[in-house]
Amino acid sequence: MKKYSFKNDYSEGAHPRILEALMQNNFQQEEGYSNDDFCKKAADAIRKEIKNNFSEIFFVSGGTQANLIVMAAALKPFESVIAANSGHISLHEAGAIEATGHKINIIESDDGKIKATEIEEIVLQHQDDPPHMVVPKLVYISQSTELGTIYSKSEVDEISKTCKKYNLYLYVDGARLGVALTSSKNDLSIEYLLARCDAICIGGAKNGALLGEAIVVNNKEISEYFKNHMKQRGALMGKSRIFGIQFLEFFKDGLYYETAKHANKMAEKLKNGIEKAGFGFLTESYTNQIFPIFPKEMIKTLEENFEFYHWKEVDKENLAIRLVTSWATKEEKVDKFLSYLD
Amino acid sequence: MKKYSFKNDYSEGAHPRILEALMQNNFQQEEGYSNDDFCKKAADAIRKEIKNNFSEIFFVSGGTQANLIVMAAALKPFESVIAANSGHISLHEAGAIEATGHKINIIESDDGKIKATEIEEIVLQHQDDPPHMVVPKLVYISQSTELGTIYSKSEVDEISKTCKKYNLYLYVDGARLGVALTSSKNDLSIEYLLARCDAICIGGAKNGALLGEAIVVNNKEISEYFKNHMKQRGALMGKSRIFGIQFLEFFKDGLYYETAKHANKMAEKLKNGIEKAGFGFLTESYTNQIFPIFPKEMIKTLEENFEFYHWKEVDKENLAIRLVTSWATKEEKVDKFLSYLD
Amino acid sequence: MKKYSFKNDYSEGAHPRILEALMQNNFQQEEGYSNDDFCKKAADAIRKEIKNNFSEIFFVSGGTQANLIVMAAALKPFESVIAANSGHISLHEAGAIEATGHKINIIESDDGKIKATEIEEIVLQHQDDPPHMVVPKLVYISQSTELGTIYSKSEVDEISKTCKKYNLYLYVDGARLGVALTSSKNDLSIEYLLARCDAICIGGAKNGALLGEAIVVNNKEISEYFKNHMKQRGALMGKSRIFGIQFLEFFKDGLYYETAKHANKMAEKLKNGIEKAGFGFLTESYTNQIFPIFPKEMIKTLEENFEFYHWKEVDKENLAIRLVTSWATKEEKVDKFLSYLD
Amino acid sequence: MKKYSFKNDYSEGAHPRILEALMQNNFQQEEGYSNDDFCKKAADAIRKEIKNNFSEIFFVSGGTQANLIVMAAALKPFESVIAANSGHISLHEAGAIEATGHKINIIESDDGKIKATEIEEIVLQHQDDPPHMVVPKLVYISQSTELGTIYSKSEVDEISKTCKKYNLYLYVDGARLGVALTSSKNDLSIEYLLARCDAICIGGAKNGALLGEAIVVNNKEISEYFKNHMKQRGALMGKSRIFGIQFLEFFKDGLYYETAKHANKMAEKLKNGIEKAGFGFLTESYTNQIFPIFPKEMIKTLEENFEFYHWKEVDKENLAIRLVTSWATKEEKVDKFLSYLD
Repeated sequence: MKKYSFKNDYSEGAHPRILEALMQNNFQQEEGYSNDDFCKKAADAIRKEIKNNFSEIFFVSGGTQANLIVMAAALKPFESVIAANSGHISLHEAGAIEATGHKINIIESDDGKIKATEIEEIVLQHQDDPPHMVVPKLVYISQSTELGTIYSKSEVDEISKTCKKYNLYLYVDGARLGVALTSSKNDLSIEYLLARCDAICIGGAKNGALLGEAIVVNNKEISEYFKNHMKQRGALMGKSRIFGIQFLEFFKDGLYYETAKHANKMAEKLKNGIEKAGFGFLTESYTNQIFPIFPKEMIKTLEENFEFYHWKEVDKENLAIRLVTSWATKEEKVDKFLSYLD
Repeated sequence: MKKYSFKNDYSEGAHPRILEALMQNNFQQEEGYSNDDFCKKAADAIRKEIKNNFSEIFFVSGGTQANLIVMAAALKPFESVIAANSGHISLHEAGAIEATGHKINIIESDDGKIKATEIEEIVLQHQDDPPHMVVPKLVYISQSTELGTIYSKSEVDEISKTCKKYNLYLYVDGARLGVALTSSKNDLSIEYLLARCDAICIGGAKNGALLGEAIVVNNKEISEYFKNHMKQRGALMGKSRIFGIQFLEFFKDGLYYETAKHANKMAEKLKNGIEKAGFGFLTESYTNQIFPIFPKEMIKTLEENFEFYHWKEVDKENLAIRLVTSWATKEEKVDKFLSYLD
Repeated sequence: MKKYSFKNDYSEGAHPRILEALMQNNFQQEEGYSNDDFCKKAADAIRKEIKNNFSEIFFVSGGTQANLIVMAAALKPFESVIAANSGHISLHEAGAIEATGHKINIIESDDGKIKATEIEEIVLQHQDDPPHMVVPKLVYISQSTELGTIYSKSEVDEISKTCKKYNLYLYVDGARLGVALTSSKNDLSIEYLLARCDAICIGGAKNGALLGEAIVVNNKEISEYFKNHMKQRGALMGKSRIFGIQFLEFFKDGLYYETAKHANKMAEKLKNGIEKAGFGFLTESYTNQIFPIFPKEMIKTLEENFEFYHWKEVDKENLAIRLVTSWATKEEKVDKFLSYLD
Repeated sequence: MKKYSFKNDYSEGAHPRILEALMQNNFQQEEGYSNDDFCKKAADAIRKEIKNNFSEIFFVSGGTQANLIVMAAALKPFESVIAANSGHISLHEAGAIEATGHKINIIESDDGKIKATEIEEIVLQHQDDPPHMVVPKLVYISQSTELGTIYSKSEVDEISKTCKKYNLYLYVDGARLGVALTSSKNDLSIEYLLARCDAICIGGAKNGALLGEAIVVNNKEISEYFKNHMKQRGALMGKSRIFGIQFLEFFKDGLYYETAKHANKMAEKLKNGIEKAGFGFLTESYTNQIFPIFPKEMIKTLEENFEFYHWKEVDKENLAIRLVTSWATKEEKVDKFLSYLD
């Protein structure tokens, strides 16, 4: 029998309602390349959700694609991106941004977040010796971050102000936006967040979609030729309907939040249980990724029954692991996991 | 009521068996990024089909992605691709290959096919003035072509020989491979074709998949770091399972050929009917894309009931249109279309 | 003893006045990276020559650099260049433009020139299927062309009008601008030409400079961040003074035209002598590159005393060769060459 | 009257012997694109100097070009470079390496140097999650560094061993190699250094050349198509003779070391005088760049008579400035500078 996996939030297929929607509309003939009715309706639903009639919405199959296309559309060749060292684009996209021609100016971060003051510092440094230096032009933040943390309203305000001051674009990688928005610590509505960024990627795959991400662009400078960039990077899909159907299902009545809430609930249960059992965490996470620190011996025992990633050695005896929950996580498995801690 | 569309072979969702397979395996937990069991089984099924245990199989979400990743993996910066002017990469991919850094050396073609002698001519021309010229290194052909035609066994033999003589890679864009393999005029087995090329893309989306293409690579020089290239170009999907499930369904018992056969059968019926009604064609196609030439007046009438693309003005009175059939084309609609020709 | 070479116009070093100027200013301390006084004065001299106070002038070390930097500065990733198949960027720059990410839309040409109607045709073709197609945005012409021919005033007028109509940039590769401007057939002043193009490269190396090209940009959209692009492509030189000193010498009193005139005069003498001896030419050139057609046997004899390039086989017995003259060509060698034709 | 400048080592033209050599050979006809006799002789002279008959030598006009072409030739798209944050490619080349498609993995450094252990750490980190991460493949070090420091023999040994262990290329940016080799603290011969690296750039412009850098490549994997890469990046010069003539002059009898020695001698005199006057330095430099720390008030006075760059604020009252000497620095100006410190 296979072990139960807490490795990631894309271990299963799709939320049943997503599959049903695909099934139901299967034989309806549609245009391709985002010109289908479903993409249009999904875009409308998202615009309604974020209360912005002027946003443009694009759908792509994956998050790395979303990131690199936004950069390609937003940046001149000599312009760069500011991101945390833990940012997905910095570490886990095999140099996708650099392959698109752009440097990433790294900010070292322990909790996955960057600060307005750090952004400012990089901008000022790069005004030192033009035109010999890249020109920072876009700030990349993840919400929730790769370490499970989230930006608060006031943090976003600060970053947004700094971006405006220095004429920087703000882009939010929302591969895990759902769990951020539904986190017990969140004080930031989707509407508020989107009003402060130039573009955001609303993740589907990690929130119960079969696959697919929605990119919301609020800035004409970025959106104007976005489809040309999508096509050039291999992201304009003939059967765009698949994305349209899924995101319509997500946003027509709040399913997008339901799946995220379940993931958070399961993570919280894990977290509380682990705390109660006397263990600490690497980061303070209130979303679906938690990083408990366990004795190495104990980890071996847990691994006989569960799958998860080792994250970071804390000291000789202890290791932080990553546990990820999702829309599909079974509560009984959470309980079972906790039972091993006693 | 919507008009029936012969615009393309991706107007509908997926073949019901594909959707069922996705449904059935939905809750099985799997690894991501092509390490899932379904991708492994699908790869095995494809290797068995093509009778080559050493081929490596990769799955991506779209055809343009497949093309540009093969180029990225196969070519040094100064190496170029030889392709027909009608080739998908030449005309309809928004400069995706050039954005990856490589020139396409164009061969003008009326029927979508290129000849071994034309390839040789380009190679020799470019030996004239090294290192000032690009070095042609990869030959790109489409099977079936963008104009519905197919390469015969002897044509592939000639091209393959020329590629070997000049140390060129041969890559086949098989976005519509199914209809080529099941064409009434085909004399080329998948096994024979694949034994002669370094890489091929086996199209899913246009043959009844929800989305997804399988890339078969027979040459270690191209396959060695293929996943790194995939990741860098945004094509390594967390939920790779979706591709695995679909291609396993396609190749476990011949579904891939069944869907293609239906498309060809419907195209043939259209073609025969059109011929019988006294009209000619722009190209000699025995696959699912046909290009009948109709009087412009008549086209107006047809457009009241059907959707299709205008392709090319033939003379003042006549226009070639494109009709595309698919796994989902309804025979009654074909009959209805033909009824307008009398 | 070495044979005398008519292979190209960069076989010798620099015009003595150029070397003297470098010598004379050798120990004057200057800023680098185009901020030196010489670059400023040279730019002023060029602006005066072309009667345009608003042009911006940049200096780079080579022509391929000039071409690729103009493209990098002018084009968005999905935008393309229109050029003749014989254009330097199309054939002899090892894919430099594609390495910068841009497709070249080729116009087949026998005489090295392209027509306004051909440009229009390509633009219209590419309006067919956006965003799947590249967007032609810049027209590249060479003056004089790679085949020794030149554009007339009326031809430039037509091309310029078409560019304005379709919102295209016009860029002139003037690697051999000097011999065009001083050609006996020229009816186009530098002022008139420059008023009609967005950017032009004024070639130095082939007109008597040690090395270096001046890029004149008339369009703020292209010039705004030009130095950033130069730096990124490795073209912003610490000792920019070298370019400044040379171009100041060229344009302070007409030396740029003197060197070119000599080259043309020598070519004309060759051409007249060859005609008189009864031989024809591949192209109608009135600049410093001529393409006489000789019997192959005779070419062997000529090659015992001279160096030149074989250009193109005309028929079994005859071959076109290329003879290039320059500011340094010795009249006695021209006479000697002609003496072999009798 | 202009102030005397200690801003950089490329404020003047070229060493008189260099100019004389250019003058003397000016009318000798030569092939272009590195096929001239001077490039061949210069390459032989360099091979003799480094005692390696198998090295291949290429000449380009600038250092950024050299760096980006080496990367283009050495790296696959997903491979990265390891460099210090102060490395020229990291900070002062406007993203040239990223524009060529490659990520730079940064090591923070105070003195411009990186350590073998730091290289190892980055390599190991990136083995964590292939193929999602870039693959570090080339180590970039500067000798002397951008902060005036130099690597010792034992440091190079350690780095070289680590590179071999992890199959990394070692590339040395020797834009200021001359002053490193002739530094009073140097224990590393050019022969020894070159035997340990895959490629090196021997800087000309900062050591008394008009312009030009020699790239020595010891590894066939990098050199095989180097000229194709040079051409594609705009670095293959028609008048390559200029580089050949200069580097032949440099290496035929040790001029390359003479110019560097003078620069070092002048820097040493400055340094000793500054120390004697009671001031300290930001880095421990024994080459031609020194970074004295002066009170801000005093800097104002100095700036009335001299030009130099402010480098870094040390505290509220004090600032480090950069003083650069060269082959052309006049001893009387050094004395005058020191006279202001009393």
